[in-house]
Amino acid sequence: MRRCFVFKPALQIGFFVSVLLLFTVKGRAQYHQYIDPLIGSEGSGNVFIGPSCPYGMVKPGPDCNKAANNGYSPDKDKPIYGFSQIHVSGTGGGPKYGNVSVMPFNGTEGSSIKQESLRDNEIAKAGYYSVLLKKWNIKTEITTSPKVAFYRFVFDKKNNKAVKIDGGEFLGEKAIPDYREAQQFVGSEIQILSNTEVSGYTKIRGGWNNGAAYTVYFHVVFNHPFKKFSTWKGEQLFTGKNTQVDEGKKTGAQLFFDALQTDTLEMKVGISYVSTLKAKQNIDTEIPHWSFEKTVNETRARWDDLLKRIEIDNDAALSQKTMFYTALYHTMLMPVDRTNENPLWENGTPYYDDFYAIWDTFRSSHPLITLINESRQVDIINALLQIYQHDGYLPDARSGNSNGRTQGGSNAEVLIADAYVKKLKGINYSQALEAMLKDATVPPGDNEEKEGRGGLTDYNSLGYVSNRFVRAGNRTVEYAYDDYCLATVAHGLNRQGEYRRFLGQSNNWQNLWRPIEDNGSKGFIMPKDASGKWIDSIQCDVSNGKANYIPYTPLAQDWPVCVCWWCGFFYEASSWEYSLYVPHDVAALIKNCGGNGAFERRLNTLFDKGLYNVGNEPSFLSPNLYHWIGRPDLSSVRIREIINKNYNASRSGIPGNDDSGAMSSWLAFHLIGIYPNAGQSYYLINAPAFKQTLIHQENGNGFSIKAIGLSDKKCYIQSATLNGKPFNQSWIEHSDIANGGELVLQMAAKPSGWGSVVLPPSASADHN
Amino acid sequence: MRRCFVFKPALQIGFFVSVLLLFTVKGRAQYHQYIDPLIGSEGSGNVFIGPSCPYGMVKPGPDCNKAANNGYSPDKDKPIYGFSQIHVSGTGGGPKYGNVSVMPFNGTEGSSIKQESLRDNEIAKAGYYSVLLKKWNIKTEITTSPKVAFYRFVFDKKNNKAVKIDGGEFLGEKAIPDYREAQQFVGSEIQILSNTEVSGYTKIRGGWNNGAAYTVYFHVVFNHPFKKFSTWKGEQLFTGKNTQVDEGKKTGAQLFFDALQTDTLEMKVGISYVSTLKAKQNIDTEIPHWSFEKTVNETRARWDDLLKRIEIDNDAALSQKTMFYTALYHTMLMPVDRTNENPLWENGTPYYDDFYAIWDTFRSSHPLITLINESRQVDIINALLQIYQHDGYLPDARSGNSNGRTQGGSNAEVLIADAYVKKLKGINYSQALEAMLKDATVPPGDNEEKEGRGGLTDYNSLGYVSNRFVRAGNRTVEYAYDDYCLATVAHGLNRQGEYRRFLGQSNNWQNLWRPIEDNGSKGFIMPKDASGKWIDSIQCDVSNGKANYIPYTPLAQDWPVCVCWWCGFFYEASSWEYSLYVPHDVAALIKNCGGNGAFERRLNTLFDKGLYNVGNEPSFLSPNLYHWIGRPDLSSVRIREIINKNYNASRSGIPGNDDSGAMSSWLAFHLIGIYPNAGQSYYLINAPAFKQTLIHQENGNGFSIKAIGLSDKKCYIQSATLNGKPFNQSWIEHSDIANGGELVLQMAAKPSGWGSVVLPPSASADHN
Repeated sequence: MRRCFVFKPALQIGFFVSVLLLFTVKGRAQYHQYIDPLIGSEGSGNVFIGPSCPYGMVKPGPDCNKAANNGYSPDKDKPIYGFSQIHVSGTGGGPKYGNVSVMPFNGTEGSSIKQESLRDNEIAKAGYYSVLLKKWNIKTEITTSPKVAFYRFVFDKKNNKAVKIDGGEFLGEKAIPDYREAQQFVGSEIQILSNTEVSGYTKIRGGWNNGAAYTVYFHVVFNHPFKKFSTWKGEQLFTGKNTQVDEGKKTGAQLFFDALQTDTLEMKVGISYVSTLKAKQNIDTEIPHWSFEKTVNETRARWDDLLKRIEIDNDAALSQKTMFYTALYHTMLMPVDRTNENPLWENGTPYYDDFYAIWDTFRSSHPLITLINESRQVDIINALLQIYQHDGYLPDARSGNSNGRTQGGSNAEVLIADAYVKKLKGINYSQALEAMLKDATVPPGDNEEKEGRGGLTDYNSLGYVSNRFVRAGNRTVEYAYDDYCLATVAHGLNRQGEYRRFLGQSNNWQNLWRPIEDNGSKGFIMPKDASGKWIDSIQCDVSNGKANYIPYTPLAQDWPVCVCWWCGFFYEASSWEYSLYVPHDVAALIKNCGGNGAFERRLNTLFDKGLYNVGNEPSFLSPNLYHWIGRPDLSSVRIREIINKNYNASRSGIPGNDDSGAMSSWLAFHLIGIYPNAGQSYYLINAPAFKQTLIHQENGNGFSIKAIGLSDKKCYIQSATLNGKPFNQSWIEHSDIANGGELVLQMAAKPSGWGSVVLPPSASADHN
Repeated sequence: MRRCFVFKPALQIGFFVSVLLLFTVKGRAQYHQYIDPLIGSEGSGNVFIGPSCPYGMVKPGPDCNKAANNGYSPDKDKPIYGFSQIHVSGTGGGPKYGNVSVMPFNGTEGSSIKQESLRDNEIAKAGYYSVLLKKWNIKTEITTSPKVAFYRFVFDKKNNKAVKIDGGEFLGEKAIPDYREAQQFVGSEIQILSNTEVSGYTKIRGGWNNGAAYTVYFHVVFNHPFKKFSTWKGEQLFTGKNTQVDEGKKTGAQLFFDALQTDTLEMKVGISYVSTLKAKQNIDTEIPHWSFEKTVNETRARWDDLLKRIEIDNDAALSQKTMFYTALYHTMLMPVDRTNENPLWENGTPYYDDFYAIWDTFRSSHPLITLINESRQVDIINALLQIYQHDGYLPDARSGNSNGRTQGGSNAEVLIADAYVKKLKGINYSQALEAMLKDATVPPGDNEEKEGRGGLTDYNSLGYVSNRFVRAGNRTVEYAYDDYCLATVAHGLNRQGEYRRFLGQSNNWQNLWRPIEDNGSKGFIMPKDASGKWIDSIQCDVSNGKANYIPYTPLAQDWPVCVCWWCGFFYEASSWEYSLYVPHDVAALIKNCGGNGAFERRLNTLFDKGLYNVGNEPSFLSPNLYHWIGRPDLSSVRIREIINKNYNASRSGIPGNDDSGAMSSWLAFHLIGIYPNAGQSYYLINAPAFKQTLIHQENGNGFSIKAIGLSDKKCYIQSATLNGKPFNQSWIEHSDIANGGELVLQMAAKPSGWGSVVLPPSASADHN
């Protein structure tokens, strides 16, 4: 018998909690103390480690690696070369942002533009980061409000104090013009406005989403006047020249404070995507004072106000609390709220950027936001609809104010269906349906990885995407689910024609279902050409003039060796994983796989033989699939196993790219024992990690989940009640949660028959 | 017998020439004196009447009509409400630009934001505009450098002097969000920098091309300090508030100069699309002084340097000279040179905007620019290739840094072929061919009026665009010609496969050729459905529940009554016009029409029955088609007739929208007796209006055209020599001109057989 949840001890926790207490305010829920921004900072988590507000536009933090998505490297041998103000969290591929880099240093006029130092004493907490720059013995502390970064530098008395503001730095630079996924420099500008103020901007294009140019404006203000300054353009320094105009070259400024009366220098960096004046206004609005602590506390209060909405068992281990609340924290770092910061069309309506990508976040991040912060999710969807209205398509990903890229489905449709079935108010669902229909009916044209549905011409004529398009496999299965989501909304709006069409199309995954066997299981999504012929192999390379082919098997991976990363039949996973992606009709999937017994064996093979990839999103739902054969106990065991093996409160505690919090949100849901099937109205129930969880919803209703008797040994759900009444199904409707109430799970040391009779919904089962 | 050229007297000419002499500089060619910016300012010419440099980014001028493309109204009862800095010239449809409006007035703090005045004494000359604002007796004079407008205001001594700078004004505003072709306000900002300087920006989206947001930055500097100021945001005025930050509202400033020591106030408005600092830098670079006259003279010198490249008969009538040089002037107002002002990607390479539209200008404007200013045309094409590289497609139209829209063909391809056959150096023709192939092979997707070839899926599968796409008729015939241009370049680059494919496709116009008769002529481009069935009628409206159909005849016009303006089978012309659009294979066209006799009768019917529209581009080549039946004399007669009836030196002297100088360039070519068939290497020869023309080419070679004996009576070409040798063909190769030499036309009172044997090129004839 497997053990229940056991969490690895996280050594650093005790240390940073004590540091943190410096800033705590009495009498308020202190959930932020359980945020550890360093979870996921080592390994492949790629999380952003600096301070951020929830959905914060500004994310200031250290940069030590230009090739890293978060700019960061845990390797202390890599010097910090600056602190830039904009980052994303958890992403992979070519980096984006890393703009407006600042750096304190010791020096005088004539100092070199490049300044870097090794570090020590790195501390990262909710709303706070600090580090010692060893080269100069400068302690740098950072906090932030939504649009303003706040720095405190503590210099050595004896040294010449200096700060540089660099408009030419950014992540992911390559020398080759238009290099795929590289960011490219467009222009920058800097102006010394007074002896305490500097403003300017940096304009960059490209990056992971191959986006158009975006401009980050800044306004910097110091609490002490600088005495001298230099500015630069390109490689050339100009002493005392107060303006460097944009001529397509990198610019920046060095500010020299040689006669500081104190060793501590404070600096606020206001950011805007609209103008330098707006960047200044953001400072005046958000941080009109010079109290670093006040800003730290305000930011923590913002987090507390969100985190307290899910109260977990107070007796839970610190490591559990840390994992859980840090997971919520990671989930709410992105997308970023850029309301009033949209340079593209009229301001005032909600505007969010850095959907990066919805392919990652639709499955669990957005459902979690909906649960904690429903009004925020409404704003996010309205922002998506604004993007559709003005740019023509919903994004699947968007960054730097540009749609792009798509990996598979048009998954904003799932978010819309999820909002619709969960009855979120304040969304124009007619317009939303129009946006979904656009995805589903109008091919995006030339650039099929920007938005919409690539390969749609095939999909709509053949019922699948043929091998003449890349990513044909996951495009087909994802479009089928997107179609189900479309049908859901069409049905609700009484658009029966569209409902029938897209419900029908939601079976399209079956058109690529090939009855071949692999590792004891039968039936897999496999490539087909446009004439309907199965494809058995793919040319992988040519040696000595002879082409070598690899056979297409359910485990074959054509990318990135035979074809480019984005050019395989599947995106970033195998047929073993994608063949199980039928979230709307697991019953039909089970039937295709040969029935309950075969399906159980297949899932066991998936997990036991390592065919399941814990570190990516395509298999997010897979551990829960046992529910549909009436064995939720097996789902719970798998989930427990996955978490125990792969997640913990250490710096490498996230098993793959956190992807804007996607991995974290998957964890958070499973820790409280429910998991959404995004786009549908219910959650699957599993054994939670906490004895009790209380969800305070925005509608005022509370919902509690209690696991009576939960212990290391008693980790199976024996029976359940909902609001006191027996509850024998292994899934719960969102409306039951929204209406408030109590789910009580009676825990036992052995599995029972609970959840074996009334199975979770499946489209084909619903229609039987 | 018809008379030769006779020009209507233009009454205002004497007057403004005398005004002009105030600024002339001795000893330099004074061609600018023949520029009359008011030609085309009445009627439908829509020309911009303010000062501009050649291809000038800044075009400051009066605005009296927000619905007018040029902001102007000749109706003196319409008050001037401001002078804005950016305009286009000659365009139709929804207006674009009209940004950064300034207005002198008499007033003190608390004056209303709106200020307007009736006008008098309006004078427009090369590089100069002036007007008296009657309400306040303020004389306003304007001149300009490429990126800076220069204003001189002469106030009445006794009055309180004021100037407003308005970031909220623009043309074509509608209250309805996203109204088609309307410009929409996005944001603006204003800042009082000192008592002589104001900066800010205005950000607008939409307009004719439905473009993305563009930002016009400005820096304003006065030669006298203002004493007080107000700024505004929305409707609210703030006395002494020096900054209005962008919050999506209209902003501006009023500046009060109540204690001017002189009555004359001067103001420079620097413009940039990059930043306010760059707008200031543009002032420092281009107009670092305060001499209004110097700027006027520099701008005139820029024009003289171009106009002098075509010297015409010094004895020509003033009205002829005025028509000719004003036509050259109009041709070189657009596209605008925005090199170093590109906000989208790296600066430094040539960047041009306001291709508005190439559909208008490819036929004669660009060939004229090539002849006068070949290096400029090379830069323009390189800018187009940069746009292709970064935005994915060549534009057919582009404005405000956004591709859009397409009316029919993908005509940038014609420009490329034209450059290629004329052997323009400094262009990467391999990349250019790639861009052409993109147009011809990759459907543009969702927005089929933005760029590329709408209806391409039909065109490439059926060989024509079927009636399931709008503008199927002119799209088909224009794509066929674009394909010919593509084949031309492919052939030159030895890409034989593409050459054969696209040469074959250039016959696609024949796929819509229906052998029906109309007005005595047989065979017309007519609509067909995707199954190959001719369409006989179109539903036009429904009354009393009954649909009414109109028959599709060669004169039927389905737009804009039955369907929207852009939704007809043809764009802005009838089948009578578009059926003659086969510029690459007039021989085949003649054959299809029933041979020479039938073709001559058909052309006669076209012109005599008023089926030819002088005011739009589709028929630009039609008057020359007689050349291909060996009757260039008939072409000349028609051209003469068209010019006499429709063009003159008066304010209404342009018979249709000048379309960025397209109509003007058509006139200019015909006045000197040659006319290009854009995309091909030759010019058709007609009787010129001038006894001699000398073209000074950038390669140093001169080419002269002499019409010996030309008079009111002797207006037929009897014979010709090229460089002293008999020249019996009615067309001349560009290389003959480029190499330098002399074409001598012997004029007579009656037609001869000259040009009747060796006919101009035709694709099918070349291959016979």
